[in-house]
Amino acid sequence: MTILFAYPDNEKQAASLVKEAGYEMGAIKTHHFPDGESLVQLETDVKGRDVILFCSLDHPDSKAMTVMFFAQTAKELGAKSVGLIAPYLGYMRQDKRFHEGEAVTSNIFAAFISKHFDSLITVDPHLHRHKDMNEIYTIPAKVVHAADAIAVWVKDNIENPVLIGPDEESDQWVSDVAKKAGVPYTVLTKTRHGDKDVEVSVPEIDKYKDHTPVLVDDIISTARTMMAAVKHLKEAGMTGPVCIGVHAVFAGDAYRALEDAGAGRIVTCNTIPHLTNAIDVSDLIAQNL
Amino acid sequence: MTILFAYPDNEKQAASLVKEAGYEMGAIKTHHFPDGESLVQLETDVKGRDVILFCSLDHPDSKAMTVMFFAQTAKELGAKSVGLIAPYLGYMRQDKRFHEGEAVTSNIFAAFISKHFDSLITVDPHLHRHKDMNEIYTIPAKVVHAADAIAVWVKDNIENPVLIGPDEESDQWVSDVAKKAGVPYTVLTKTRHGDKDVEVSVPEIDKYKDHTPVLVDDIISTARTMMAAVKHLKEAGMTGPVCIGVHAVFAGDAYRALEDAGAGRIVTCNTIPHLTNAIDVSDLIAQNL
Repeated sequence: MTILFAYPDNEKQAASLVKEAGYEMGAIKTHHFPDGESLVQLETDVKGRDVILFCSLDHPDSKAMTVMFFAQTAKELGAKSVGLIAPYLGYMRQDKRFHEGEAVTSNIFAAFISKHFDSLITVDPHLHRHKDMNEIYTIPAKVVHAADAIAVWVKDNIENPVLIGPDEESDQWVSDVAKKAGVPYTVLTKTRHGDKDVEVSVPEIDKYKDHTPVLVDDIISTARTMMAAVKHLKEAGMTGPVCIGVHAVFAGDAYRALEDAGAGRIVTCNTIPHLTNAIDVSDLIAQNL
Repeated sequence: MTILFAYPDNEKQAASLVKEAGYEMGAIKTHHFPDGESLVQLETDVKGRDVILFCSLDHPDSKAMTVMFFAQTAKELGAKSVGLIAPYLGYMRQDKRFHEGEAVTSNIFAAFISKHFDSLITVDPHLHRHKDMNEIYTIPAKVVHAADAIAVWVKDNIENPVLIGPDEESDQWVSDVAKKAGVPYTVLTKTRHGDKDVEVSVPEIDKYKDHTPVLVDDIISTARTMMAAVKHLKEAGMTGPVCIGVHAVFAGDAYRALEDAGAGRIVTCNTIPHLTNAIDVSDLIAQNL
């Protein structure tokens, strides 16, 4: 039977996955010393066993060494295989050398994970210039889509919804969720004048004024894109939209900023533990094991 | 000509090393995003050049990804070789599996650095169970000893000194410095009753009551060992000792705690930037390039 170990932040979600998958839950101790070093201890015997670490890779810098120590130690202790379930996968956005001399961190991080683990499962990674995980990951990497779970949540919770993508990049998520939920959708057009200056320039939502607007995007990080969309919808006379993100990254005070910007309700999948988690993707992951 | 790039914290020391070595200083940009990811940009062309990163590896978890991104990007951009100067090298203390299932982080971290760099120079790494760097590092790893610089500083600054090692592990540093400085030394004997309970049980310092006590150790981290030694020396009727550490790790509030414990003066080498840095090891590193 496979043993699943959970990184401390992810214990709750890992517990529900273990139940669905019929796995054994492993005991793990992690410690972060005040001098900035870490230690990990596998308290369950892994010899001859298939082992999986469940660790969402938001804030990847603070977790990378611990994750590497886990994988190498499991191998040293005789694990048959060492897999990784990272419901959120960091370092997917720097997917090209935007400026001369820059690191292409998505590729280097993928090589790092591929070196230490035998397989990977993740939920809706931010694939943009890379079209497929196997362009950068050299291990079997399975992608779980949250669209089914989001579609069910929208149907069950929102009356007369219209799904709205905050920008063109979100088209793939929004159209998929809309189709599954059987509801209309539209996508706003964004003009970027600089890192912090985003203008939403193409409405198209006049015909949905009586609908409940539901913004859907994959990652809410700085929330700047979502906030611009909220502002645009409100200026167009709509109510504060429901904001759905797959991944609750919420860098710094982004969550409060999005609330203050007039979001009606903020809802995320439980790929990164956050108080907005309302959509459970555990069974979708379990189906992909 | 070799190009030296400095991690932001280490710019000052790298600048003096570049001068001594006749290297070219490279321009580097590092950025830590609020979502816990990092980016690095090499602003100096490295094609066909020997490249060195100067980065002290205190707080290694927060720097490891950036360091890896630097090395891989330099290689992608055509660097002939990519070396690392880490005046302080983290992850040297967990050099065995003290408890079942624990990671031996010194070995795994060494493999990580060895994978990404072609060579390493460090100052007085904490070698204990590992007797030599090549037991764990598979790249050429050169060790620079700070003893010469410390001996000169003691001779120039302390009247009638007696060097004192706070525990048996420090014997190697203290005896070496004492010999080079031509001054007497002794080493306290420590009994450990638990992680936080250290008893210094064997004085031997009665004959040095008219001397200025100078404690010498390699790493001051929690400072617990130093504080116990200070206490012991004061109880034996000596003045607050000068405390010399090679590496100013000072985890949490350790620096203030050591001051409060009655240290006379706290002095460190500039392997980790800290206000106690008084002993420059740049020329010793330059001699080993």
